[in-house]
Amino acid sequence: MQKGDLLYAGKAKSVYRTGREGVVLIEFRDDITAFDGGKKDILERKGCFNASVSAYLFRLLEEHGIPTHFMDLVEDRLMRVRALTMIPLEVIVRNVAAGSMSRNYPIAEGTPLNPPVIVIDYKDDSRHDPMLNDDLIVALKILTPEELTRVKDIALQVNSVLVRFFSSLGITLVDFKLEFGRADGEIMLGDEISMDSMRLWDNRTGESLDKDVYRFSKGDVMEVYRRVAEKICAGEG
Amino acid sequence: MQKGDLLYAGKAKSVYRTGREGVVLIEFRDDITAFDGGKKDILERKGCFNASVSAYLFRLLEEHGIPTHFMDLVEDRLMRVRALTMIPLEVIVRNVAAGSMSRNYPIAEGTPLNPPVIVIDYKDDSRHDPMLNDDLIVALKILTPEELTRVKDIALQVNSVLVRFFSSLGITLVDFKLEFGRADGEIMLGDEISMDSMRLWDNRTGESLDKDVYRFSKGDVMEVYRRVAEKICAGEG
Repeated sequence: MQKGDLLYAGKAKSVYRTGREGVVLIEFRDDITAFDGGKKDILERKGCFNASVSAYLFRLLEEHGIPTHFMDLVEDRLMRVRALTMIPLEVIVRNVAAGSMSRNYPIAEGTPLNPPVIVIDYKDDSRHDPMLNDDLIVALKILTPEELTRVKDIALQVNSVLVRFFSSLGITLVDFKLEFGRADGEIMLGDEISMDSMRLWDNRTGESLDKDVYRFSKGDVMEVYRRVAEKICAGEG
Repeated sequence: MQKGDLLYAGKAKSVYRTGREGVVLIEFRDDITAFDGGKKDILERKGCFNASVSAYLFRLLEEHGIPTHFMDLVEDRLMRVRALTMIPLEVIVRNVAAGSMSRNYPIAEGTPLNPPVIVIDYKDDSRHDPMLNDDLIVALKILTPEELTRVKDIALQVNSVLVRFFSSLGITLVDFKLEFGRADGEIMLGDEISMDSMRLWDNRTGESLDKDVYRFSKGDVMEVYRRVAEKICAGEG
């Protein structure tokens, strides 16, 4: 499949035109970054692992009736998707307190959150992705109140499906980040769902199976990514 | 009125026991601070102005059926109130974008917000008062969902009463911060409502009539506080 013009290059993915209107290609690059871009590396094959995991999980979500931009994986690291007008939000769903939640508030890492907690940040590197709340999202005209309800509903549906799936693999889905976009007046899931955007803990050992291995130099990142990608793409236990 | 033991000293107020169970005295001191305590001064008579404005506005809110801790002003700077178990939240109501809202998000200072925007921060100096959202407030067990609804309802009622009152004085109530507490199972308004906790703009000249005069060295703070206190305590236009 021929990549067309580069439309956008993010920290770990690039988006290219295709010959077809309304369809673009997402290239999962081998770049990895953390701490607002403060830590950066290139890790060979990382893009392939994240592309295959994202493709697997988007298919799983589609099977459960959740609208996503996913069309197919045309090459190892190249995903064909519907072109979305992205909504500048990072929608984080948390099942267990970890990361910034435990850094910012008095709640110990590992505390179960039931019901799950949704936190929504404004996606803007120059502002360091400040947190929003419902009133602000509407006041800033990012979403209407109805759209916000829809986004949260989809996020919780995604959470239900993924929690069940990871549980069957012996993995706790601690938290994850989603991004949404619009196409033809519909809101759907965009971006990726990968080890870069989820926090996954091994149920038995408690070890991190995600980007925290890179963030906090907990071991061989690519060995973990390879292992998790294989496990996920082998499917439900 | 005799002050009993000191129970608590904040950045600008101290709380003392009285002889009566469930009743405390709040002393409005002359200390003024800004920028998370980064700027500090003592301004003679500031405590008196804030005490008299708070007393006036608490009475006004009580007349409108809004539950507050206020009992009476027993001296210039000494307010008798119901003892509350304070809820560690700063509830900010915004009618016009200003301050941190315009610093943190792409919305110009002066943009009207309709409906008003509520932002709730976790009151914890050591954490620099991080912002919360509804899910976090419930997950951290700060409020139940029903209590959160009640707090927001009261905050919006307070806003309606104060917007109308200040409008009659030729002043725009840009935003303000409330704190709440519990007594006998009821949630009520505590703390203060003063030039330290409100952002007020003169309708005609646009000039700041609040702590921004101090924060950004815009002029003679005490001259502004004195003028506004007189205007407020002279009552509705």
